[in-house]
Amino acid sequence: MKALVFHGPGKRSWEDKPKPILENPTDAVVRITHTTICGTDLHILKGDVPAVEAGRILGHEGLGVVEQVGSGLSNIKVGDKVLISCVTSCGRCDYCKRGVYAHCRDGGWILGHLIDGTQAEYVRIPHADNSLYVLPDDMDRAAAVMLSDILPTGHEIGALNGEVKLGDTVAIVGAGPIGLAALMTSRFYSPARIIMIDPDENRLAMAKMLGATDTIARDPIEAIKKLTNDEGVDVAMEAVGIPETFDICQSIVRAGGHIANIGVHGKSVEFKLQDLWIKNITLRTGLVNTDTIPVLMKVVESGGVKPEDLVTHRFKLGEIEKAYDIFSEAAKEKAIKMLLTAE
Amino acid sequence: MKALVFHGPGKRSWEDKPKPILENPTDAVVRITHTTICGTDLHILKGDVPAVEAGRILGHEGLGVVEQVGSGLSNIKVGDKVLISCVTSCGRCDYCKRGVYAHCRDGGWILGHLIDGTQAEYVRIPHADNSLYVLPDDMDRAAAVMLSDILPTGHEIGALNGEVKLGDTVAIVGAGPIGLAALMTSRFYSPARIIMIDPDENRLAMAKMLGATDTIARDPIEAIKKLTNDEGVDVAMEAVGIPETFDICQSIVRAGGHIANIGVHGKSVEFKLQDLWIKNITLRTGLVNTDTIPVLMKVVESGGVKPEDLVTHRFKLGEIEKAYDIFSEAAKEKAIKMLLTAE
Repeated sequence: MKALVFHGPGKRSWEDKPKPILENPTDAVVRITHTTICGTDLHILKGDVPAVEAGRILGHEGLGVVEQVGSGLSNIKVGDKVLISCVTSCGRCDYCKRGVYAHCRDGGWILGHLIDGTQAEYVRIPHADNSLYVLPDDMDRAAAVMLSDILPTGHEIGALNGEVKLGDTVAIVGAGPIGLAALMTSRFYSPARIIMIDPDENRLAMAKMLGATDTIARDPIEAIKKLTNDEGVDVAMEAVGIPETFDICQSIVRAGGHIANIGVHGKSVEFKLQDLWIKNITLRTGLVNTDTIPVLMKVVESGGVKPEDLVTHRFKLGEIEKAYDIFSEAAKEKAIKMLLTAE
Repeated sequence: MKALVFHGPGKRSWEDKPKPILENPTDAVVRITHTTICGTDLHILKGDVPAVEAGRILGHEGLGVVEQVGSGLSNIKVGDKVLISCVTSCGRCDYCKRGVYAHCRDGGWILGHLIDGTQAEYVRIPHADNSLYVLPDDMDRAAAVMLSDILPTGHEIGALNGEVKLGDTVAIVGAGPIGLAALMTSRFYSPARIIMIDPDENRLAMAKMLGATDTIARDPIEAIKKLTNDEGVDVAMEAVGIPETFDICQSIVRAGGHIANIGVHGKSVEFKLQDLWIKNITLRTGLVNTDTIPVLMKVVESGGVKPEDLVTHRFKLGEIEKAYDIFSEAAKEKAIKMLLTAE
């Protein structure tokens, strides 16, 4: 089969690899029909995630058709059209029993990281009964592939971790794919205002289209002061992963407010406890558990959210290297999410 | 009347001051019967809290008898024996309506800070209907005065903010008064282990007596690894207020765990988001709201907690300068809380 293979920092190629086989009774092998590229894949290519070894097939998002099932599966059957969760989980360990699938003792985020991933013609999915979701036939496939990672991440690590509530003022720092997913899913909880902060005017325009009430391109701390009468925001979401954007969040959160850190950080940050110790803030971090995939599927089905709006570019799966080239220049190319479809 | 007056960094004296009068219809004037000294008072004396002006009467904890009431009060009557909350609050503003009394728009922590405090023969209490609690006659007064600040702070900013749960492993960094109050109140929620970390062996012995299951005097990060089979703790509480103790907390918290910052910080800290972004942690900070004073009073009455165990030294109110001298050398003097009683 063909697959997108990581060959060490800066190196990748679409090349022949052996088709995966069942390794455990709880595995399934899935023929990929749709996949996409995540910002995390770019981090891996830069060498920021040293656990990823050369030879690894990348990708942790996708849809497909079940080709083979292990003898230990009961939910998933050959021929099922499925959504692949970026987090695979056993459902039985102590972390899973607390709903923290992200830290499953035999799973978590391992696809395209510690085991071969979804940017390929076929993928092996461990603990398939708990890690695959059967798709309704009529669900838009561009919408569905956003449910592997980006929409649950925006929802769980942004909206839920930030405790977005009716009437809140929410600020999202970073209007990339994950910031926009946080915007879309924050709207479920009816905040009064969603302020998007990003230097890129194209991305701010997209944020406006997706429901941001205000956008800020420059001097965000001063601009938030003006917009909120010096009160600050109820919820500040960090959706970039650098110290500068974290600092914006800690500077704009009001007393009693929430900081939701969604970004993947490579460095420590200066945390201003001398100001924040007294402010009764809650800060949460995390990898998505994807436990909200089932409810998000229902919301997509009812038309309550249209994650396909995040798809800006479409390619055939065999054109994935071209898609990577464009996604690597995402701001310039006005790219948010790339949809790759098998022929 | 006599009062303990701050005269700029390093300077205080027990001296004559005018007796307070009612300034607003919602004020009460209380004759102080009991008070104590808080670590925060020492911070003020060091000059760490520049908002406190020279001439200010210190103190934000105490019990007393109501002497005068404003025309706008309905709960509190002359002659009531009352507990003074360290946080006074109007009960009507947007913060109060969300239960965030700490940030009341006409209150919060102002006693002994922005207005004259409780280390005096008399004190004016604003919004007395919402800031005073009538004491049962038979409640131990040493226990009751611990309910002004330290016990609700340990409870709300330690145990509740840390979400201590049945079976949890809790570590408390700092066995001073506030760390011990966090220990006492964490026990309400039946954690499996409470590990107290402090270099002072006397304080660790007191922690053991109050229910700590384990104590650590040195190399806490390594020691916690051993005690928890490299898992880390469910809840890490910071009860000192310096970067080193915060670093212990962020190093020992497990995936999905909680950090409760109780300490008052004067400096920023290095926050290791490169390790923590993926760990699904919740960190909370805050000033006590004291909304749990009524429930803590019930627990004290039922014998479910004995905060009088924190009182190590007893003085007459007129001896407060001597009490300050001893409290300033708390570790050496084996001092936790000083009880000052009017004659």
